This record gives sequence, structure tokens and C-alpha cells, in this order.
Amino acid sequence: MTPQTMAEKILSQRSGQAVYAGDLAVVEVDQVMVVDSIAQSFIQVMREGLNATPKYPERVSIVVDHVAPASTVSVAQAQKEAREYAAQTGVRLFDVGRGICHQVLIEERLAQPGWIVCGSDSHSTTYGAVAAFGTGMGATDIALAAASGKTWLRVPESVMVNFTGELRPGVTAKDAALEMIRVLGADGATYQSIEIHAGDRFTRGERMTLANLCVEAGAKAGLVVPGGEILELYDVPAWVYPDEGATYVREITVDLTALNPRMSAPSEVDNVHDVAALRGLKVDQVFIGTCTNGRIEDLHAAADVLRGQRVAPGTRLLVIPASSEVMEEATRDGTLLTLIQAGAVLGTPGCGPCMGRHMGVLAPDEVCVSTSNRNFIGRMGDKDARIYLASPAVAAATAVRGVIALPEDVQGAVA
Amino acid sequence: MTPQTMAEKILSQRSGQAVYAGDLAVVEVDQVMVVDSIAQSFIQVMREGLNATPKYPERVSIVVDHVAPASTVSVAQAQKEAREYAAQTGVRLFDVGRGICHQVLIEERLAQPGWIVCGSDSHSTTYGAVAAFGTGMGATDIALAAASGKTWLRVPESVMVNFTGELRPGVTAKDAALEMIRVLGADGATYQSIEIHAGDRFTRGERMTLANLCVEAGAKAGLVVPGGEILELYDVPAWVYPDEGATYVREITVDLTALNPRMSAPSEVDNVHDVAALRGLKVDQVFIGTCTNGRIEDLHAAADVLRGQRVAPGTRLLVIPASSEVMEEATRDGTLLTLIQAGAVLGTPGCGPCMGRHMGVLAPDEVCVSTSNRNFIGRMGDKDARIYLASPAVAAATAVRGVIALPEDVQGAVA
Repeated sequence: MTPQTMAEKILSQRSGQAVYAGDLAVVEVDQVMVVDSIAQSFIQVMREGLNATPKYPERVSIVVDHVAPASTVSVAQAQKEAREYAAQTGVRLFDVGRGICHQVLIEERLAQPGWIVCGSDSHSTTYGAVAAFGTGMGATDIALAAASGKTWLRVPESVMVNFTGELRPGVTAKDAALEMIRVLGADGATYQSIEIHAGDRFTRGERMTLANLCVEAGAKAGLVVPGGEILELYDVPAWVYPDEGATYVREITVDLTALNPRMSAPSEVDNVHDVAALRGLKVDQVFIGTCTNGRIEDLHAAADVLRGQRVAPGTRLLVIPASSEVMEEATRDGTLLTLIQAGAVLGTPGCGPCMGRHMGVLAPDEVCVSTSNRNFIGRMGDKDARIYLASPAVAAATAVRGVIALPEDVQGAVA
Repeated sequence: MTPQTMAEKILSQRSGQAVYAGDLAVVEVDQVMVVDSIAQSFIQVMREGLNATPKYPERVSIVVDHVAPASTVSVAQAQKEAREYAAQTGVRLFDVGRGICHQVLIEERLAQPGWIVCGSDSHSTTYGAVAAFGTGMGATDIALAAASGKTWLRVPESVMVNFTGELRPGVTAKDAALEMIRVLGADGATYQSIEIHAGDRFTRGERMTLANLCVEAGAKAGLVVPGGEILELYDVPAWVYPDEGATYVREITVDLTALNPRMSAPSEVDNVHDVAALRGLKVDQVFIGTCTNGRIEDLHAAADVLRGQRVAPGTRLLVIPASSEVMEEATRDGTLLTLIQAGAVLGTPGCGPCMGRHMGVLAPDEVCVSTSNRNFIGRMGDKDARIYLASPAVAAATAVRGVIALPEDVQGAVA
């Protein structure tokens, strides 16, 4: 049989026949994920467009995370309808405060190696961290997947991304991910599957950061070849791995050893520079959180910089754990206390101000350093606000200095 | 000299002459408090209306609490202007996450016995907990007070409220306050000073709950005669106490011993009933927080009910500490962990959804049990939502049962 990429492997397995890039495939969907902000449209298509109920309710999850707790009556109304729909149909509901959809589904093991997960959120590529083909879709396609238990798609070409070497201290998976996007370009992998080869490097959380950002190169999916912690956490079927000799449209290599802390400057994710080159810019708000970098290891990295320090006057630091489990663990292990003592402002687990709908919207001309995944014009509020994307360690150092800074600037080594 | 009420005492002291109910007095203002939602109007009046700067910048505080972190660009813009104004004029700024204005000013000792505190928030009566004449004003009056260091007012008549007996277990200062409002009526003390005589009963926090609710009877101020913990925490000048034989327009007595847990039903604060009479009503959202009941003792009371329990499916529990100090203490002493483990959703210290502007807005027909101070139509969101006001213990019990409940209903004693 012709060698297959990881995307081809999964789509073949879930369609019941060998498929290759360019083929159309009808596949079983293992989990359909609907977020609060799309729930009303989803329900309307289910009821009025399809006159259907979910074929496998246990394969559908609704997550209240994008604007939670509700910021307006219309948002509250939409969430109310989502709750009622879940109660009526038996689909899973993860209500306000449980956390961000991708984080919650992975914590709940609703994404597994070899699965296909369709989500109504563009960062559904995140499920590739656990070798699931995760992809984002609109309300209509999501409703069709829920109603039929299947979806159809054109099998994507694959790009191979090889990570070699080892990250130096203070350099993180976020920096590796930003560098990957810089090399690929913001439209460099449009409708392709980014297949990440990193051996046993990277924890599950770090793999989520990598897979999460794949969509910022336009990718349909971002699949991390299982290794390291993933092999301890999951039974990985042997058929999931890509074949030797499979066809890739492009291959790139990122040498982790050579990597410095990186930052996406406004207003494209692939506008990536060394943090050192941007050092010193006054920052109004720092945001640590999101599906990209709101996990316990991210809060640990921030706390390591913030311990015994104080957020600079004139700068505000928002920290929003990605889930209630993260929040609980941070409370239990002392991380939360460290953050609070440094002057961090905590928020309800969820998406926070990532898409500018509440909980830290930016005013005109404000500058924000964020651990999130998008720095487009207007993303977090006003069109004249500027967003810089970075790792939690860089974000924390920036909060302490009040200007874009490296962790080493906080320890006093450099001014 | 003619005997004086506590209001007359303070207004005489701060106007430099003996004044009595009905007199007009020009008084020194010891602290002017401006909240985020009024800051833009305040700044405009200062600049364009008065062409003035604060006469005593150290006597002016701006608190970012009502919609913090910012929920929209216009809110963010207003907060940005407030920050810039504080930096330019040298007035104090308590930025997002520090907490609710009244809580923060009392923690920072910016309200003291005998002081006059004018706040741009109706619940500025809260300062009466520490024997300060606290009162709410609009942006124009607040700006005049900031510009001149003085304000003028008609000396209010006083109502004497006597608390006698002792609260039984499970009955709290909130229940006492609601009962007081029931007896007085929602317009029963309009433009009067409620002078609360409770001996050494009640902590500072409990006194804040009592003084806070005085405005719900229409009062200009709510002054709690110093006693108990207040004498340990403050140097109370001898002249602050009311004279024997002072004139009161009305006198009421609340017997604490006879009091049951109380609840204000929609849609007036004085529509007060025993919780037992309202038991069993399905509740969608429970909110524990606000300047009325978001202090550490309130979170302790909630945690005592929630320990080892879980919030009922179909009900959500929001807990928003009144300040960063409360949040830190709750994190340090294990209270936060208890709340999280029970399924509580934490929010950024501040006003939260109290006035329906973000962070838990109610949908049509939703029912909320809240520890806040107002249950007016539309207060927390849709006009068809219903709000019941209660103590933190009752709120916590309600969250566990999913219906209006008493703490004893959770321990399994009663169904």
C-alpha cells in the first residue's frame, strides 16, 4: 500500500477505506464540540434546517467558555438556550467556569489518538496534541456532523515540521510554535495538515500549544506524532503513526537549540521577532491564559518569574486559568497565591479577553502582551490597540518591568 | 448645648459650628471616592465645568470596580482616561482587581471615625460601619467636593435603630439588615440618617453589611455607633458618639434572638420573608459577593456550607471576593480551595454582575439568589429575571440544593 501521512492514516481509518491527499472522504466523527457563541446557530440549524437531533448525543459537547459568565442579556439568553438544549437532547454540557473547550475536552479524554474531533472553534487543531484529527467548522457543518455522526472533507496535503535539538532554559514550546508559524507563514499551510515530528520532546500541554497554533498558518489540522508523555497517558493505536516514505508537500526543520524567546508583533501571527529586539516598549496590559497557554505549566512558568516580585505600576496583569482543574491545581500547589501576591488579577476560567468580548477589552492605543494566539487588528478590543504574542515567562517578565522584557531582566541580570 | 445625634455630631465637627437637623451645613470632606463608571463624567465636570484640579489630591480616590476588567471598548476607554487623570493629578488609583470601592477604602483606612466620605456610588453609606458619615452623590457634586475640599448638605433627621438580643446560629448580620429594611420600608428613611445602636455586637464587616443596606431605606447615611471590634481597630474620638436625649424622628427595635434567616423577594428590597417560606423555588444562578457580602467572613460562611458538597446540576454558583485582600486571604486559608472543589466559579474581585453590566448577567425568566443589595426589575440583566437577596450561608445552601434552601437543608436535617 502507498505510504500514508498521519492525516491520511486517520481519515482512512475513520472512513473505512484508504484515502490520500486530494480524495474526498466521508468519515465517522468521534466528538462534536460546540462553543457558547455558536450554540444558538447550531441549535437553529439542527431544529429548523435539519429537523434532527444528535445521532450520538454522547459524542456531542457544548462548552460555555467564550463569553462566560455572560456579559449581556443576549449572551445570557444564548447560554440559557444551550443549557436547555443539552438537557433535552442528552448532549454533554460544560457550563460557565469549567474552562476553555479544547482544554476541557482533553482533560475529559473526549479527544483520543486516532479520533476525529470537529469543533465550532478555529483552534480545534489543538486536539492534534493527542494525535486526534481536530478541525474547526462553522455551525452548519457542525450541525450536520452532530445529526449524522459523520462529516466529509477533502483529504489535506501534509507539511512535515521537524523539531530538532533541545530548548534552552527560558525558551518554551510557545517560542517553538511562533517560530514554526514564522517559517511557514500565515497562509503557508492553508488547508494542509501540519505533521509535527518531535520525538519524545514536549509534554501534552506543550503539544497542545504547538497544535493550537497550527491554524495560524491556515492549517486544516495540526498532528503531533505521538511520543513522550502521550505514550504514558494514552493507548496509541499502531496505525496512527505516519508511514516511512509518505508524501509531503513541504518539509521544514526548526532547531530548538538555536531558538531565543520569540514574540509576534502586530498585527499578524507570523510577524515573529526575538523578544530582545522588542524590549523596552511600554505595556498597559499583560494577559496570561487561553487555550494556547493557560495550563498549569504555564502558570508555573509565570509564577517562577513573579515570585517575590510585583507587577509594575501602570501595568495590569490578568491571569485566567484555562480550566477549573487548572485553577484548582494552582490553588492547591501555591501557584495562585504567588500570582496574587505579585499583583495578578485572576479571572474566571474560560477564554477571557482573547477575542475582545469582555473581561479585559483594550482601549485605543493600548499595548497588550498576551500568551494567546492572535494579534490581528481589533482582536482584543479597539482597532488601534496593539497585541504582542509571547510565552507565559516573557509575559510575566513584561508585567514586572512594565515594558516588554525577558525573564532574565527580572532576575536583575540585564537592564 | 442641645443634645445631638451622631450625624449632627459629625457634621458639626466638620463644619466648625453646631448644626442640627434641617440646617444647611458646609463641611470639610475627608475623602472623595469616584468609581470607574462615573469617572468620565467626573473628569469632564472637573475640567470643563469647573476648570479645576483636586484641591487635596490625597483626599481623592478613583476605584476601577464596577465593570472591571473592561467589558467593551468604551468601558476600556473610560478606564484609560481615569488612569491618565490619576497620573496627572496625583489622586489615588485603585485599578482593576483591587476590589470594590467601599471595601478597598475601608481596608486602606481611607474612611475613619468622624470623617466625611462622599462617594459616587449609592452604597457609600457603608462607611458608617466605621462611624464615618458616608454618602453617595452624582458626578457634579463629587467634582465640586474634589475641587473645593468641601460639600454642603442639609443636616438629616435621624432614625434610631436598636438591635437587641443575640443572633442564633445560621442567622447573620445580613438577615438583621434585611429585617431592618423591612421594618423601615424602602422609602422609610428617605434623606434621613439611620443611627444603629448595637453595643459591642457585630464585627467591622458585619457593620459594613448593616450600613451598606441603609441606603435601601432611602437613607442619606447609615451610622453604626462604635463598639466591639471598631474600638480595637480605630482611635474613636469621644465627640463622635450621639448624646443622650438627642432628637430622633423615629425609633425601632429589632430583636436579633427572634430572627430567622431572611430573604428579599422580587422586586423590592423591603419585600422580606423568612427563607423557610420561599424554600424549594428552582434557582439558576447563585451569586456570593458585592460590597454587602463579599468579605472573608462571608466566604467562610459559604465554605462552611459548601465543604464536601457539590453545586447542584443546573445551578451555577459565582463567587466574587470583594477585594484582592479577601481573595488572598481566602487563597491562603484554604477557603478558595473548598469553594472550587464544591464547583464554585470564581471571578475577578470587583462588583461582578451586581448591576447587570457583565460577568453573570441574567437571561429572561432566570432566578438568582444573590448576597447583594438590590433586587429591582432588570438590576442584574433581563427585566424578566428574578432576584432574591439573602445571606452567604443561605446562598451557599441554595447552590447545593438547586432550590432556595436553608443551611440546615444541606446538612441533611430537613428536606
